Amino acid sequence: MGLGFEIKKCSKDSRARIGLVRTSHGPFATPAFMPVGTQATVKALSPHDLRGAGVEIILCNTYHLYLRPGHKVIGELGGLHQFMGWNGPILTDSGGFQVYSLSKLRKIEEEGILFQSHLDGSRHFFTPRLAIEIQEELGSDIAMVLDDCPPYPCTYERAKSSVMRTLRWAESSKEAKGLEGQALFGIVQGSLFRDLREECLKGLTKIGFDGYAIGGLAVGEDVGKRLATLRDLLPQMPPESPRYLMGVGTPYEILEGVKMGVDMFDCVIPTRNARNGTLFTSLGKLNIRNSQYKTDKRPCDPTCNCYTCKNYSRAYLRHLYVSKELLAYRLGTIHNVAFFMNLMERIRRAIMEENLGALEEEISIYFGQEDEHGLLSLCDG
Amino acid sequence: MGLGFEIKKCSKDSRARIGLVRTSHGPFATPAFMPVGTQATVKALSPHDLRGAGVEIILCNTYHLYLRPGHKVIGELGGLHQFMGWNGPILTDSGGFQVYSLSKLRKIEEEGILFQSHLDGSRHFFTPRLAIEIQEELGSDIAMVLDDCPPYPCTYERAKSSVMRTLRWAESSKEAKGLEGQALFGIVQGSLFRDLREECLKGLTKIGFDGYAIGGLAVGEDVGKRLATLRDLLPQMPPESPRYLMGVGTPYEILEGVKMGVDMFDCVIPTRNARNGTLFTSLGKLNIRNSQYKTDKRPCDPTCNCYTCKNYSRAYLRHLYVSKELLAYRLGTIHNVAFFMNLMERIRRAIMEENLGALEEEISIYFGQEDEHGLLSLCDG
Repeated sequence: MGLGFEIKKCSKDSRARIGLVRTSHGPFATPAFMPVGTQATVKALSPHDLRGAGVEIILCNTYHLYLRPGHKVIGELGGLHQFMGWNGPILTDSGGFQVYSLSKLRKIEEEGILFQSHLDGSRHFFTPRLAIEIQEELGSDIAMVLDDCPPYPCTYERAKSSVMRTLRWAESSKEAKGLEGQALFGIVQGSLFRDLREECLKGLTKIGFDGYAIGGLAVGEDVGKRLATLRDLLPQMPPESPRYLMGVGTPYEILEGVKMGVDMFDCVIPTRNARNGTLFTSLGKLNIRNSQYKTDKRPCDPTCNCYTCKNYSRAYLRHLYVSKELLAYRLGTIHNVAFFMNLMERIRRAIMEENLGALEEEISIYFGQEDEHGLLSLCDG
Repeated sequence: MGLGFEIKKCSKDSRARIGLVRTSHGPFATPAFMPVGTQATVKALSPHDLRGAGVEIILCNTYHLYLRPGHKVIGELGGLHQFMGWNGPILTDSGGFQVYSLSKLRKIEEEGILFQSHLDGSRHFFTPRLAIEIQEELGSDIAMVLDDCPPYPCTYERAKSSVMRTLRWAESSKEAKGLEGQALFGIVQGSLFRDLREECLKGLTKIGFDGYAIGGLAVGEDVGKRLATLRDLLPQMPPESPRYLMGVGTPYEILEGVKMGVDMFDCVIPTRNARNGTLFTSLGKLNIRNSQYKTDKRPCDPTCNCYTCKNYSRAYLRHLYVSKELLAYRLGTIHNVAFFMNLMERIRRAIMEENLGALEEEISIYFGQEDEHGLLSLCDG
């Protein structure tokens, strides 16, 4: 449809691979990490800040933009790229997960999902066709099908019915899809049940999509179970299409995903942590509010080349955070996003140079203990 | 001491003049407007944003920086310029007004002012010498003497005693002042009493300062009384030194001040208004949250060349404000600060070209009705 995916190299030691995805708004290198710009802005950053931090593709949330300012408003203004001033690739989710995690009075019916807005309580009915219509109006480069996200934990029966509904909705989505130059990804559900995941994947590949996403993970299950599910599923995913692991994750989980063959990630960790004052560095996380940084002249991470690290000391950042100054959130977010972009760049280089093991060892030292459990909603609200 | 002031041209039709002030961190053109960077940051903006908006000199608040992170911390980190990454001129106030307007349990004694921190209730005693010591540690380019700000309204007796104390403190400040390359301004008090203002000014010029500020205005009195006081006082101020009208003001008041011979202004109006969603334009103020801008593709002000107006529509700005997105405050502040910088540039050009009258007429149309009364604290907290 609207996507070119070129695999540049496959690792010999793992399923890791590097590639290039071409979209209507330019290419992005894979494995890729997408910062989350829930309401048509990656919180605290301008598009110029994103470029400066090395970002190539961002994710925006359909649910939020549908409610405010409305997809028709954005369409009238020339689409999401024009609206927010970001001319690079954008992936929009389908809204399914947000309806599940944010809205009130959610009721899943065969035709779609009935829900109340978390903003004003107004009632809405999301169907697979409406999710496509909204995303076409937004004009994103990659759209996602509406899926049925089961809760976690859930019974086999619930997971099974979710898979069947997800497949029926995927079919409707594919039929509804009309916009040239916009790719469409299917989403594999099935909770932690191996056979259901396989069944869902088979159904989706039969319908045929530009890429395949793994949904319903990072919703509260422990990392071990998550990785086991991925280990089973990923080898069966079509190698010629991009594979996208939704809502993941920490540097450690990203690296694990890459080794299993994941090409795309998104997560609110860098942006949300930045607003909390938790900054990622090559020596681990740093709580910049800590009094130990009061007179620390060093940049946040001396090995980092981001705008924040090139221009400001830890002492100044700490002062801004402690004083709740708005500049704090921008500078912290620039750094954390740049850290993730730099991580992806290093991962791609390591795959190219066949030394992912060395990078893995290094990263396991930094991040081994810091997996983030619990529900990370896939939007940055 | 640390200042060169060169008057480039005096208007024939008014007392307006254009000039250049040279400081240890470069020059700034007058009449000048100083955005307020209370806590070592002009709220929501980076130093690069300030430069981009045309800012030449900023004001920082001694009271706030003394309390947090502490002047000694900033001194240890190389001074305020180094700390916040702004290499242009900085004026610091003396803290007197903030002690008056923000702190608890304030008690003015002959030696200084006893007060409790608005942050944690800790007790402090500000003396003229301490105010100098703090500002020398901060390393600002222009320091202000500690003054006794009387409340408004106040009796003649209270205003008189405030003037006498202000003069005694000014003398102590001058004696305490030691740092090379840092200028010191005296502050004229006297409430709305013409003879007290004159007495204060005479006392200050006798001591001798690098510049003279007018304090104790914009504290609740009406604009008419404020302007009348200025009209009496300004012709008596030494023409060879910069004149600084503290805490003023609206575009209309700035233009009135310029015509009376004021060289420097500061005010929180552009920055605070921006955070409230009130944006200045060549056609008057605009409340960007208003639903009429929902699909408005135009920039905030089509005649403006700021980063915000060059890159974003009113519709996008409105969406950011309505969604309470952090980027809103930065983009709005950039625009409002650029508007004030552009206003000053136009004022200087009009003085040069002897057509201040035309600009005045134009500005009176835009701003005639929009004087802002009430207490505008001289910090942006």
